[in-house]
Amino acid sequence: MADTKRTDAKLTGVLEMAAPALTRKELLKRLDSEFPESRHALGDYDIEEIWYGGCRLRQRYDKRLLRPGSTLSGATMMALGDFAMYLAVLSAIGWVPLAVTTNLSINFLRKPPARDLIAEARLLKLGKQLAVGEVAIHADGADDMVAHVTSTYSIPTVK
Amino acid sequence: MADTKRTDAKLTGVLEMAAPALTRKELLKRLDSEFPESRHALGDYDIEEIWYGGCRLRQRYDKRLLRPGSTLSGATMMALGDFAMYLAVLSAIGWVPLAVTTNLSINFLRKPPARDLIAEARLLKLGKQLAVGEVAIHADGADDMVAHVTSTYSIPTVK
Amino acid sequence: MADTKRTDAKLTGVLEMAAPALTRKELLKRLDSEFPESRHALGDYDIEEIWYGGCRLRQRYDKRLLRPGSTLSGATMMALGDFAMYLAVLSAIGWVPLAVTTNLSINFLRKPPARDLIAEARLLKLGKQLAVGEVAIHADGADDMVAHVTSTYSIPTVK
Amino acid sequence: MADTKRTDAKLTGVLEMAAPALTRKELLKRLDSEFPESRHALGDYDIEEIWYGGCRLRQRYDKRLLRPGSTLSGATMMALGDFAMYLAVLSAIGWVPLAVTTNLSINFLRKPPARDLIAEARLLKLGKQLAVGEVAIHADGADDMVAHVTSTYSIPTVK
Repeated sequence: MADTKRTDAKLTGVLEMAAPALTRKELLKRLDSEFPESRHALGDYDIEEIWYGGCRLRQRYDKRLLRPGSTLSGATMMALGDFAMYLAVLSAIGWVPLAVTTNLSINFLRKPPARDLIAEARLLKLGKQLAVGEVAIHADGADDMVAHVTSTYSIPTVK
Repeated sequence: MADTKRTDAKLTGVLEMAAPALTRKELLKRLDSEFPESRHALGDYDIEEIWYGGCRLRQRYDKRLLRPGSTLSGATMMALGDFAMYLAVLSAIGWVPLAVTTNLSINFLRKPPARDLIAEARLLKLGKQLAVGEVAIHADGADDMVAHVTSTYSIPTVK
Repeated sequence: MADTKRTDAKLTGVLEMAAPALTRKELLKRLDSEFPESRHALGDYDIEEIWYGGCRLRQRYDKRLLRPGSTLSGATMMALGDFAMYLAVLSAIGWVPLAVTTNLSINFLRKPPARDLIAEARLLKLGKQLAVGEVAIHADGADDMVAHVTSTYSIPTVK
Repeated sequence: MADTKRTDAKLTGVLEMAAPALTRKELLKRLDSEFPESRHALGDYDIEEIWYGGCRLRQRYDKRLLRPGSTLSGATMMALGDFAMYLAVLSAIGWVPLAVTTNLSINFLRKPPARDLIAEARLLKLGKQLAVGEVAIHADGADDMVAHVTSTYSIPTVK
């Protein structure tokens, strides 16, 4: 419990933009060497910024992500939201690749145009076993959110 | 409201396995000609059975769907659950490809082994504007559910 | 993990209706002596049946639960769904009153008439730390579900 | 669609704190005269502030809301989150009491202390048929969120 309070303190107030447990460069290197499959689900993405408990991720537009009506598929936004949340968890606990999603809930708000998507994730809670966060997804350059995600990750116990 | 009751009656009781609005063959043909992108998100899939308000879908194992820990990615199961629900909606309302997900919530229950996944979807409600359903996802040949999805689709108004 | 598999086996297949960890009578006695507040949220309820990993709960109609439109409030169905899930958890792990909900998602499907509500809960997964389940809520004597709940409980570690 | 864009514009950017469709005083008067049952579920509450697309609601502490472990019940936070969202919808569309919740998802983040709760709701989308929003719930005077809600309301068609 003491540990929960310490980490939570970094999520709110003055420490909100504290340094991440992994830099952007380290994280991209680890992902490419140990988790290359992430490129299959998301296609071409970039981590624009990462901080303790959060990140901003860009997914580049690819016409294979379209579905009828010339809009991006729901599956695209779910994969993006899940991955942004994964990186937000790693930004706080370091490289623990076996952290897994236990729950994800997404509301699709507007049809995204055929453009890059920007996902901004932030943790709402970081406990010893569970992390909970939310992700706002926008089309690049637009104010309105296209989808909103909340998600829970289970953090494996280190032995 | 009269219409809602009529369609709902088919979802429960004696009519539960009523004939779908589209046969399996028609649906596969339409998907391949008008929605070929569905193959990108899901890879190789097959509709095993379809009935009014539900379907059973098989997603063939593909090692590109793996993530660290030799398990299938959450994104895979979300895309599968969303697509199974989409087919369940079409099974009841016919070919209305612009039906869109408004909400999806998934609980990941167990790590799926590296095997085919089977998704079984059924509608819980079919209104004029909204359809709500649930999807149970199992690994092929296993009893335990690996993920459970609930989802809402918005049905476009026909003019 | 071994423990998870053992308990999960009881949730599916031949053992599905195995004996609960607490009988109906024991549970009602414990609730009334140690958790009398449950009567405030739910009003007059009864446990109709309880088995390993599930239960059927009746909430008696009370006009104070109505909201505009002569229907039962969403808050009523959420409280009922949460409590039914709580009892399903206790039916499997015994009297551990500090088990707490971490997530609840509810879809409201139809307006319930001014009548008793029946909630049937069943666990989809029982791990050491988390239990996940679903609850179907019906109006007494009606086939159509009025609401569907999925929920996750956190099980406190016994020391 | 034109209408959707107009109302959405008020939810973001410079118009974020635009005037509500109903003042706090009008809303409290309407609730007490036409929806007195809201007092049953929530007990003693107050609307602290209301603006176009959002509100801040206070629920006064009442020991009947406690559950084992001296914490406030999940049912209390769900009812509060649902009601805050209801008022956020009314703040944008005016007095349409038959607006109903279609989906609510809540993450319980921390055990709330025995104190007043503050719920702050804001709409993420306001369409003609559906409104989607989120609610942050805090204990009075504390920074950490105790629960986070996302919810969808169905807006009845005016004839």
